[in-house]
Amino acid sequence: MEKILLGPMPYMSVMPTLLVGANVKGKPNYMTAAWATVACMAPPMVCVAINKMRYTAQGIEENKTFSLNVPSVDQVVETDHCGLVSGSVKDKSQVFTSFFGKLKTAPMAKECPVNIECTVFKSVDCGSHLLYIGKIVEIHADPSCVTEGKPDIKKVNPILYTHAAYFDVGNLVDMAFSAGKDYQKG
Amino acid sequence: MEKILLGPMPYMSVMPTLLVGANVKGKPNYMTAAWATVACMAPPMVCVAINKMRYTAQGIEENKTFSLNVPSVDQVVETDHCGLVSGSVKDKSQVFTSFFGKLKTAPMAKECPVNIECTVFKSVDCGSHLLYIGKIVEIHADPSCVTEGKPDIKKVNPILYTHAAYFDVGNLVDMAFSAGKDYQKG
Repeated sequence: MEKILLGPMPYMSVMPTLLVGANVKGKPNYMTAAWATVACMAPPMVCVAINKMRYTAQGIEENKTFSLNVPSVDQVVETDHCGLVSGSVKDKSQVFTSFFGKLKTAPMAKECPVNIECTVFKSVDCGSHLLYIGKIVEIHADPSCVTEGKPDIKKVNPILYTHAAYFDVGNLVDMAFSAGKDYQKG
Repeated sequence: MEKILLGPMPYMSVMPTLLVGANVKGKPNYMTAAWATVACMAPPMVCVAINKMRYTAQGIEENKTFSLNVPSVDQVVETDHCGLVSGSVKDKSQVFTSFFGKLKTAPMAKECPVNIECTVFKSVDCGSHLLYIGKIVEIHADPSCVTEGKPDIKKVNPILYTHAAYFDVGNLVDMAFSAGKDYQKG
């Protein structure tokens, strides 16, 4: 089948739905974000793209710290709310119960099963967005969501994001570093 | 419930499974990767973290171009194979049918329903990994996977990646920029 050209657009096949936590003017704020991934293995880093105009960007610049909080499917209403309303017009500090870890300026949402606490390693100006690369200082998790020391995707039950819609995780397809052993061609 | 500390590790709740396409020494090569996301809206950019030691990194440095190819669940064997074997020891140019778009050095896998063609905007040295930020030059898609000019997650049927396992996309949970309107608290 011939391909068609869709033109350049900010597309990724699968994205996580997260809440970026930052203290802005000394108060916790949470912003919904999906443009995030792992940036490095050693040391462990993540990155998240944030529009320069966002209230959250002010807080990250202020403290050079932030958190990425992983909401469960049953927190979709609170999560989407944090993407609908800016902290500049509404105080979102009470949407979640905030706690602090090793850093004293990266608020984390207690209700979220996993929280990633970060210091800013670097920020890259890409145009409309700043790509914040964060060094992971600590990962906090509900013990009920952990299997063999790692967050378990089926227990965390995270929200996937795609064009304006939230999905849950489906079924196991295969094991990585294993499925490909059946490859025959060539 | 009290949280437990898992320590820093390269964790993200949900990740895409992709094939990074690059010409290395003039020949197409595909590497499996999951550490990727959107980096900017305007201009549209993506980023992908690649271990410095990878054969693919040589090709990206050589041409300053690369592609991100989105395999479907039914391509899990070929996809995992490209993560098991390095292009430095085995020629992977025949695993997929390569085609070229606007750039002449970013090979794309025809069998994958969506292909993102990029030039390198910037690379950030994070430690073990280079974070390549790519400006999207074009998005190619199978017409059967497109709804209203955008790749449709249920038609593309992409592979999610988490700790050493592949999952498919589950069910629609809710609509973004909408679900949060029901938020009442505060």
